[in-house]
Amino acid sequence: MSDAVEPGVTAPQGFRAAGVSCGIKKKGLDLALIVSDAPASAAAVFTTNRAQAAPILVSRRQLEASAGRASAIVVNSGCANACTGPDGLKHAAAMADETTAALDCDRSGVLVASTGVIGVKLDMTKVGRGIAGASRALSREGGPDAARAIMTTDPFPKEVSAEVTSPAGTFRVGGIAKGSGMIEPIMATMLGFVTTDAAVAPALLQRALKTVVDGTFNAITVDGECSTNDCVFALANGASGVRLEEAELAILVDALRRVCEPLAIGIVRGGEGATKLVTVRVTGGTSDGDARRAARAIANSLLVKTAIHGGDPNWGRLIAVAGRAGVAFELNRASVMLGNIVLFKDGRPYDEAAPEAARYLKNDDITVTVNLGAGNELSTVWTCDLSAEYVRINAEYRT
Amino acid sequence: MSDAVEPGVTAPQGFRAAGVSCGIKKKGLDLALIVSDAPASAAAVFTTNRAQAAPILVSRRQLEASAGRASAIVVNSGCANACTGPDGLKHAAAMADETTAALDCDRSGVLVASTGVIGVKLDMTKVGRGIAGASRALSREGGPDAARAIMTTDPFPKEVSAEVTSPAGTFRVGGIAKGSGMIEPIMATMLGFVTTDAAVAPALLQRALKTVVDGTFNAITVDGECSTNDCVFALANGASGVRLEEAELAILVDALRRVCEPLAIGIVRGGEGATKLVTVRVTGGTSDGDARRAARAIANSLLVKTAIHGGDPNWGRLIAVAGRAGVAFELNRASVMLGNIVLFKDGRPYDEAAPEAARYLKNDDITVTVNLGAGNELSTVWTCDLSAEYVRINAEYRT
Repeated sequence: MSDAVEPGVTAPQGFRAAGVSCGIKKKGLDLALIVSDAPASAAAVFTTNRAQAAPILVSRRQLEASAGRASAIVVNSGCANACTGPDGLKHAAAMADETTAALDCDRSGVLVASTGVIGVKLDMTKVGRGIAGASRALSREGGPDAARAIMTTDPFPKEVSAEVTSPAGTFRVGGIAKGSGMIEPIMATMLGFVTTDAAVAPALLQRALKTVVDGTFNAITVDGECSTNDCVFALANGASGVRLEEAELAILVDALRRVCEPLAIGIVRGGEGATKLVTVRVTGGTSDGDARRAARAIANSLLVKTAIHGGDPNWGRLIAVAGRAGVAFELNRASVMLGNIVLFKDGRPYDEAAPEAARYLKNDDITVTVNLGAGNELSTVWTCDLSAEYVRINAEYRT
Repeated sequence: MSDAVEPGVTAPQGFRAAGVSCGIKKKGLDLALIVSDAPASAAAVFTTNRAQAAPILVSRRQLEASAGRASAIVVNSGCANACTGPDGLKHAAAMADETTAALDCDRSGVLVASTGVIGVKLDMTKVGRGIAGASRALSREGGPDAARAIMTTDPFPKEVSAEVTSPAGTFRVGGIAKGSGMIEPIMATMLGFVTTDAAVAPALLQRALKTVVDGTFNAITVDGECSTNDCVFALANGASGVRLEEAELAILVDALRRVCEPLAIGIVRGGEGATKLVTVRVTGGTSDGDARRAARAIANSLLVKTAIHGGDPNWGRLIAVAGRAGVAFELNRASVMLGNIVLFKDGRPYDEAAPEAARYLKNDDITVTVNLGAGNELSTVWTCDLSAEYVRINAEYRT
């Protein structure tokens, strides 16, 4: 996934990271630290869930107080610190304070994230031990450990990096992310951390991150759920000596996308019970929003996801979902393709193509294209199939 | 389900029905006829799916042409006659014509419905044979056969009736309905037929039906899908001699609800792979719409449905869904109850109640109450749990 660069958040210059085990999870690494040697521009996109976890509230406040600057990100897995009341807020703030003290940096420069069980309080003795251990373990090679320490029951770590050669100069971008789908019952869910050694003003970094997240992390779905703890943070420390200004926004967006898109797709590929990555392309929308809405409806349809799981080229389900998605839709101009195989077009089925489509569905990577027949706008969303394994994972009692 | 009245559409006076087998399905009854001895007021609620099946378009046109009068409903199962182009429209109109001829009634007086596989054309030879056979078999005892003939793979027929004693007089209401959840892959889905021997003007019947459907058939969900063929028809023939006017709207609404609510709940109970009926009550909404939206989000949440299937009193998932439902929500005033057991209230968990809640979840009928903490409006939606059996049913190839 990388362009001959070490993967992950320490690929860009001037970043160190660590992942340690401090006992929050029953086993494995559970506390990650990502540190920029110099104060960095910082940007964030937070969950839109109205039940926002304490670390979300604390990080948002810190970014405001620092006007978009940060030196470090501290993350624990195994406990979401969500729905934990005033104690939860104290604990999230203490995570930032203890990291500030251990690193000797500004308090406003530490962002906090948590992922794990909702409604359980953090054990601050364990967190303190983790922060102390991680700050001692920080290194240029620590990216992979950090990627593992933010996992809950993700089937594999997600790390990506890229070296970007641009008219403005050569710089690097790296990132790590964790799971989607409530990986363990009441897990809270999606975290992404992106670093770059380009110099970028906070406001520009925020604009670029927002743009990129809309088309990557916000364009994936495993089960249509949106957690209390979702967040994506970006740090830009300028260590490459390359400065990106307003005129280079497109370069920055492209660079961030080179990391965020494969991370987002990696999350879907590792979705609960997933056996296939499904790219849902909707064309023929009257607006971006309509195309996205239809694509999300298809990507979240249980009937579509189970049909793909079962290898059934069931175009009727795709038409039925497009028709109910609440968007402009013209049946007589609509079409459905699996890969390049047309199954429905101009109001009539092409059922003779069903056997070929059934063979296509045996692939691990499937592209579904639905033309709404109503306009010229398009949108892409990534999802996975729905298996009995998803039900098994999520029906099991927490204990 | 009945008040000492024969169940189903023939419980009201002046209605006859039949269900016959004409070979559209591989086996079993597959064509139903419901006939009023005298022309009746007719009302209908149709699917909002933009991919509307031919019988939906034909029935809508016929109701307009007759200004809300009809004498008969003809229904086939096994083939949805949806996405079938101009031929599909011809076939649906021919079903009405052939029924008109067989019954010797006005063509505008026959409503048509189909349920079954999408994208397959009706075999009109079989349909013709079915209409001829059903018109010969019509009887006052034919309600149960009609209820069976509209089933696809519903696990049981749904028929209800009630005798209503009101200041306006005593009259009867009856109804039948079929499946929700795409009962067989690419089945198109929910049909409901209601009869009454009260005399009601078409416009009043339409208002009452719309009101009742909103709180019954439109308040259920198995998998969040909305098909191309959904419709509910009501016929009122006045055979009881009881006339309901504008002033009796509440009586009419209550009478229709007595039939439609148990039919709707029956559909959920017979949902694909369902093992539990789940009543989702949302309170504390700032509007009806907010409460309904949150209730639907909870009722369609895979994580909520799998947790209930697994007997896990997972209040964190309920809070997370309420928070992402796009409605006003105040975490610190929100609460979650399973049955009468409080699990989250005033911003704090009551995990000591988890064992009792886990025992409660072993029941077949579960009530979940979520207070949004934002207002005083409430809404109820019925759903079922999500089992691996649902995935198995819908992942299997059609053939």
